[in-house]
Amino acid sequence: MTLPRIAVTTGDPAGVGPELALRLLANEAVRRFCVPIAYGDRGVLNLVADRLGWPRPDPNDIHDLNAIDATSFEPGRVNAACGAAAYRYFTAAIDDALAGRVQAVSTCPINKESLHAAGVPFPGHTEILAARTNAERSCMMLTSSVITCSLVTVHVGYREVAALLSIEGILDTIELTAAAMERIRGRKPRLAVCGLNPHAGEHGLFGDREEERIIEPAIAAARVKGFDVVGPLPPDTAFLPKLREATDAYICMYHDQGLIPLKALAFDEAVNVTLGLPIVRTSVDHGTAFDIAWTGVADASSLVHAVTLAAKLAAR
Amino acid sequence: MTLPRIAVTTGDPAGVGPELALRLLANEAVRRFCVPIAYGDRGVLNLVADRLGWPRPDPNDIHDLNAIDATSFEPGRVNAACGAAAYRYFTAAIDDALAGRVQAVSTCPINKESLHAAGVPFPGHTEILAARTNAERSCMMLTSSVITCSLVTVHVGYREVAALLSIEGILDTIELTAAAMERIRGRKPRLAVCGLNPHAGEHGLFGDREEERIIEPAIAAARVKGFDVVGPLPPDTAFLPKLREATDAYICMYHDQGLIPLKALAFDEAVNVTLGLPIVRTSVDHGTAFDIAWTGVADASSLVHAVTLAAKLAAR
Repeated sequence: MTLPRIAVTTGDPAGVGPELALRLLANEAVRRFCVPIAYGDRGVLNLVADRLGWPRPDPNDIHDLNAIDATSFEPGRVNAACGAAAYRYFTAAIDDALAGRVQAVSTCPINKESLHAAGVPFPGHTEILAARTNAERSCMMLTSSVITCSLVTVHVGYREVAALLSIEGILDTIELTAAAMERIRGRKPRLAVCGLNPHAGEHGLFGDREEERIIEPAIAAARVKGFDVVGPLPPDTAFLPKLREATDAYICMYHDQGLIPLKALAFDEAVNVTLGLPIVRTSVDHGTAFDIAWTGVADASSLVHAVTLAAKLAAR
Repeated sequence: MTLPRIAVTTGDPAGVGPELALRLLANEAVRRFCVPIAYGDRGVLNLVADRLGWPRPDPNDIHDLNAIDATSFEPGRVNAACGAAAYRYFTAAIDDALAGRVQAVSTCPINKESLHAAGVPFPGHTEILAARTNAERSCMMLTSSVITCSLVTVHVGYREVAALLSIEGILDTIELTAAAMERIRGRKPRLAVCGLNPHAGEHGLFGDREEERIIEPAIAAARVKGFDVVGPLPPDTAFLPKLREATDAYICMYHDQGLIPLKALAFDEAVNVTLGLPIVRTSVDHGTAFDIAWTGVADASSLVHAVTLAAKLAAR
């Protein structure tokens, strides 16, 4: 059996990505089930290793994009050149995955402001992926051992969410999530869909009947297709322990409806998976952590989880 | 020292309120720090006690409002007469608290649909209280040993929230929460204010700059007044364990931003406190639980917590 090759993008050079990639490459357990290849700058990885007194990485483990001079920027600072470099690592990894040169992509964090400063017209990884792979539909799912949430809307302002909800969009999210969770769990998953309004609208008392008009029809359509779906659940009680035990994945209407309970309960253990793409892509569930960048204290366990899940999804 | 008298409203007669009130009246530990008086129907309490094979309550512990015939309705059903009775118990308790005949009010759950069916023009306890006590400003706070959240907006649709946020409203919530937490903790509390948009807007990338325009000026004004406040925090990471430890109370922009993490982390342990009123009022943090009403399985610990906190706040 050939082990899957995983492109591990090192993310923003000024963030914690380079040291996380170094820790991952030094992790022997990971190499039992995949071949990790760091997509980044060899000069940056060597400089971070030198600063921390760690061994330099094996050049064979690095796909050197040579995108930035390691001495031209400071760790922990927003920098257009760092944003451009992070974008280059990621697009190279996507292209290699599309061409079959790697079987999956796992990403270290990028800085949205540095990306923006570099003129990249996308707010994050998920949107870059959707555009570059020409995905007709895609979805961000965060999964952990205690809770899994998929998002119907992601990086949009609070005010924009309600107008972006559609029966089709919710149904797409249900279908993509069900397929992914079936691969992960090895059985038909049980899904729970959250309402949008407090108390899921309490039968029209609050809100604009988004539950009746949009969410309930999407759930009904999903049931017709054979999916195991409950909802719309009142969002505040949806994540109580009893419901969590009965739910393989939640379908959440907006970013914080899913990420607040996920981060409160799963801390840094969660992995971000982009569903609906022609390639497998997972990511750490934390940011660039500029305040501790290049100090060696960042915990690589989220990246290890992300690479582990990528290998699992790629192997099937 | 005279123990505070606490009006314990029995809530919707068809819900779990009557059995919770019976359990509370039978709780000897509670009587060490307060005198509980059930505001409800003696006929309903006796019928529920009889059905469960529990002793009937002491008539001296009941303020009998004689609002509904105990044999005229079924447990677990939406019913206008039950909504009207629950409203009567609550308004009697409020009036007695305003008149000083009781020192605090603790409430069992009401059913919003039954209340609505009875023609009561308020969505919940908090709004009834604000109107009946002529409170200029009030605020719903949920507190537990692990997390406390105050809400800037409460029972309104998702779409209405952004337009309802104001510098004054957020500052009011900060001031009321700080005063309450200082009474509860006995020291100056540390408050954290959440943003509205994903990542707190990420410096204008998402949303309509509500963080810069409304939330930050409110925080600045609160600091000028001497409050210990941080924010606006990205909502998804605001509730990570490290931040929770450093925070006595969160100021949340909308219902589910506060109640999702509160219920996920504190389960049924939380107590609902209405701040800014001329009277002390606490409540259980759960609904009427129609599915288990009158079966005796409902857990009274939230009501015990609510009465305990009411006695503590009333005694000062």
